[in-house]
Amino acid sequence: MEDITVVFDEAVAPEDRTAPVMIEGLPGIGHVGKLVAEHMIQELGAVKIAEIQSIYFPPQVLIGENGVVRLCNNELYRCSGEKGSFLFLIGDFQSTSNEGHYLLSQVYVDIAHELGVKRIYTIGGYGVGHFIETPRVITAVNKESLSQLVIDAGGVFGDGEPGGGIIGAAGLMLGLSAPLEIEGICLMGETSGYLVDPKSAALVLEVLTRLIGISIDPANLKERAGEMEVAVQRLLEQEKKSEEELSYIG
Amino acid sequence: MEDITVVFDEAVAPEDRTAPVMIEGLPGIGHVGKLVAEHMIQELGAVKIAEIQSIYFPPQVLIGENGVVRLCNNELYRCSGEKGSFLFLIGDFQSTSNEGHYLLSQVYVDIAHELGVKRIYTIGGYGVGHFIETPRVITAVNKESLSQLVIDAGGVFGDGEPGGGIIGAAGLMLGLSAPLEIEGICLMGETSGYLVDPKSAALVLEVLTRLIGISIDPANLKERAGEMEVAVQRLLEQEKKSEEELSYIG
Amino acid sequence: MEDITVVFDEAVAPEDRTAPVMIEGLPGIGHVGKLVAEHMIQELGAVKIAEIQSIYFPPQVLIGENGVVRLCNNELYRCSGEKGSFLFLIGDFQSTSNEGHYLLSQVYVDIAHELGVKRIYTIGGYGVGHFIETPRVITAVNKESLSQLVIDAGGVFGDGEPGGGIIGAAGLMLGLSAPLEIEGICLMGETSGYLVDPKSAALVLEVLTRLIGISIDPANLKERAGEMEVAVQRLLEQEKKSEEELSYIG
Amino acid sequence: MEDITVVFDEAVAPEDRTAPVMIEGLPGIGHVGKLVAEHMIQELGAVKIAEIQSIYFPPQVLIGENGVVRLCNNELYRCSGEKGSFLFLIGDFQSTSNEGHYLLSQVYVDIAHELGVKRIYTIGGYGVGHFIETPRVITAVNKESLSQLVIDAGGVFGDGEPGGGIIGAAGLMLGLSAPLEIEGICLMGETSGYLVDPKSAALVLEVLTRLIGISIDPANLKERAGEMEVAVQRLLEQEKKSEEELSYIG
Repeated sequence: MEDITVVFDEAVAPEDRTAPVMIEGLPGIGHVGKLVAEHMIQELGAVKIAEIQSIYFPPQVLIGENGVVRLCNNELYRCSGEKGSFLFLIGDFQSTSNEGHYLLSQVYVDIAHELGVKRIYTIGGYGVGHFIETPRVITAVNKESLSQLVIDAGGVFGDGEPGGGIIGAAGLMLGLSAPLEIEGICLMGETSGYLVDPKSAALVLEVLTRLIGISIDPANLKERAGEMEVAVQRLLEQEKKSEEELSYIG
Repeated sequence: MEDITVVFDEAVAPEDRTAPVMIEGLPGIGHVGKLVAEHMIQELGAVKIAEIQSIYFPPQVLIGENGVVRLCNNELYRCSGEKGSFLFLIGDFQSTSNEGHYLLSQVYVDIAHELGVKRIYTIGGYGVGHFIETPRVITAVNKESLSQLVIDAGGVFGDGEPGGGIIGAAGLMLGLSAPLEIEGICLMGETSGYLVDPKSAALVLEVLTRLIGISIDPANLKERAGEMEVAVQRLLEQEKKSEEELSYIG
Repeated sequence: MEDITVVFDEAVAPEDRTAPVMIEGLPGIGHVGKLVAEHMIQELGAVKIAEIQSIYFPPQVLIGENGVVRLCNNELYRCSGEKGSFLFLIGDFQSTSNEGHYLLSQVYVDIAHELGVKRIYTIGGYGVGHFIETPRVITAVNKESLSQLVIDAGGVFGDGEPGGGIIGAAGLMLGLSAPLEIEGICLMGETSGYLVDPKSAALVLEVLTRLIGISIDPANLKERAGEMEVAVQRLLEQEKKSEEELSYIG
Repeated sequence: MEDITVVFDEAVAPEDRTAPVMIEGLPGIGHVGKLVAEHMIQELGAVKIAEIQSIYFPPQVLIGENGVVRLCNNELYRCSGEKGSFLFLIGDFQSTSNEGHYLLSQVYVDIAHELGVKRIYTIGGYGVGHFIETPRVITAVNKESLSQLVIDAGGVFGDGEPGGGIIGAAGLMLGLSAPLEIEGICLMGETSGYLVDPKSAALVLEVLTRLIGISIDPANLKERAGEMEVAVQRLLEQEKKSEEELSYIG
């Protein structure tokens, strides 16, 4: 087994693998990236064109329908149509080691380069530690000339936020794609960090679709966000009650 | 020292190393796999044909009879007779690192491939966190067409269980053998996860022998299971007593 | 991506990269080394001539002005003028793994060797666990003949201090440069270990500038040290008050 | 830097590097091995013939006299005289990673093989968790025919002790030297595991010198053991007093 293996679906001709834009939505805080990318794949009818396996993923298999297992992997999806051609990078996990994060991200941008990608969008969550009424979409870019574009689309620059930098593929792909002359934009939806956050994902989707100039029905995401909202509301009320009871006792 | 070394017993001719079926019983939850594989090795009179050493095992030697040490290893046993030919993979430890799990499992399935194996059974325990009256044998496969076979033999598909996937060699060997056209079936006996569990092992043995079409006397395993049962019963009673005393005090 | 990549600014001719002295100020205890080296770079107008990236750094990017990201790196600065030519090694992080510390430090001394460096100064903090009125500059060398020099400049040998040795690049660069016939001197400013410590840095700067025979205006460092002093004083007073209150309650 | 570097003192001719016996005394429980090997080196006037450096050692330098640093290392000493020729392997640390333990131990036995070693003695402590009046010397061998020899010299086989096997170089060198036809004997002095234990070391020295057929003055070791004894006695008395006081209060 190679440390990292990329296997393209041979049924897809090389010329049917290219696209000018790649969107990364690997698992991370609030699963914001994963929600956005998987929603777009579904709405645009993108199809899987490659699988990536690696010794840097957790050493396990996942169990699917009918008990059929498959190795942990990352996957490349592609759609091509009226709205344009897009590549999506999604997956089960990111690297379990620091070195693996670098080596995997390098492979991702090398694939992008090979497939003609000119701009990579990486999507993530920005955990703030508390529930937010109106989350912002914090952004970062790998080239100064991209800043205005992102602001026009509704993203904000966090004045040094996130202070700790951007960890994992969402950050490294921006850094590693620059020398390949690939533009990189990271969109991070503010989120509590406690729960999967479709509301934050819906806001990121809005900014992203403005940036790539297409429209995507956010209905499903918004529906899930609505359900989540109710759940969070209940959580907060329950917490408030407990506090009131405590202060009553006190 | 190579990262992973496989040394075959040269006294065993290459044609006496092959078998259509490999059974993996490396250490894991409840030592279910280890109990099943070692019991079968004993009952079928399988003999050791290879040793596997690796820098991914714990850095220590084990002390045997008369204080003679040996390196930690994994071992390949084989039997061949009226009931058919079988290979068994057992050992002291699994990998101490994530990457090592992948690299070792790849070596295991490569060996299987080389020795003509067409189907691999991996055996493990499925820890549920409490003692179980009638454990089930949860199963997973690496090819949908195997499902009915396993159900007919008494295995059950856990509807997404185990949710966390199957960790270590038992899972990875299924995933890594698929591209080599080797069928893979994982049998996991439900077990508390607290103790070595021969009762769970005896149930897995039942399903496994039905699958491979041979009969093996489960007497030894059942005897150990009986003793264990008594011990667990005492544990539970003692626990109950303590609770009663506590509620009495309360 | 190579495990460690060194990229020189091609606009700087090879003959404009050399210097007889290298000063290392990577992050560490009290950020003493970082403060000293960055202050010198500013005062001497040194310019960046190389960037070092590595899979041994944390897997993240840092966000700069206007939200533009860059990979974590270590950087080589150089100045050349009346006061002499100097190389500076600074950066965001040190290695995240033990092995990486060795491999990166080896690269650093190899670069030094290539660029004609005859002496390396490594700067660090020596954490003592409490606030110090008059910190000493503890020193270590990689060649006995350097001892007197350092003492004459105001450094002291700590009689076996630090007992645990010198960890990270500050130590390893001394050890690894010896076989390359590069002299190595480590200057460690005593510091609490709790805070960034410009006061300790100012004292190290004094000893260092005496050693390299130049003068550098310590005003900025001293100003920051003054501000820090006030902050620490307040911390200590607050602590004292809390204790008095506690003993009053008691 | 190579992962592991062995540098022989070129002033020592190849024929003056050989010996039939190697004694390993790297740091470990109670520093029993280190005490024994260093005592023998001193008493027999052995001289250093090689240094071993590695990225698997902790990433730091150690500070010696006059503040002169040196890289962490392992060292090979040799003596040759009326009493015979002996090699000693001592050092500052063992590996910081599991894989490194294997790779370093393999290098150690390869060196032994190259230098004509026919038997390796590895020395360690066997931590039992409490102070022992009369420690035993537990032994292990890599060849059954060595057992009687060791028993005759006063070693005992611990009936499966240590149950957890022998961890680190003391164990792995026995396991890895067997295929090179080098005999291996491990002597482990029982010790509390809390303190450096010269008393246990003196007992191991007794068994070891009987095995290699030479006499070595244990005076220094015994003196240190006497001092340690007094210290331990005081510790135990103090503990007893505290308990009496507590029961008085109670």
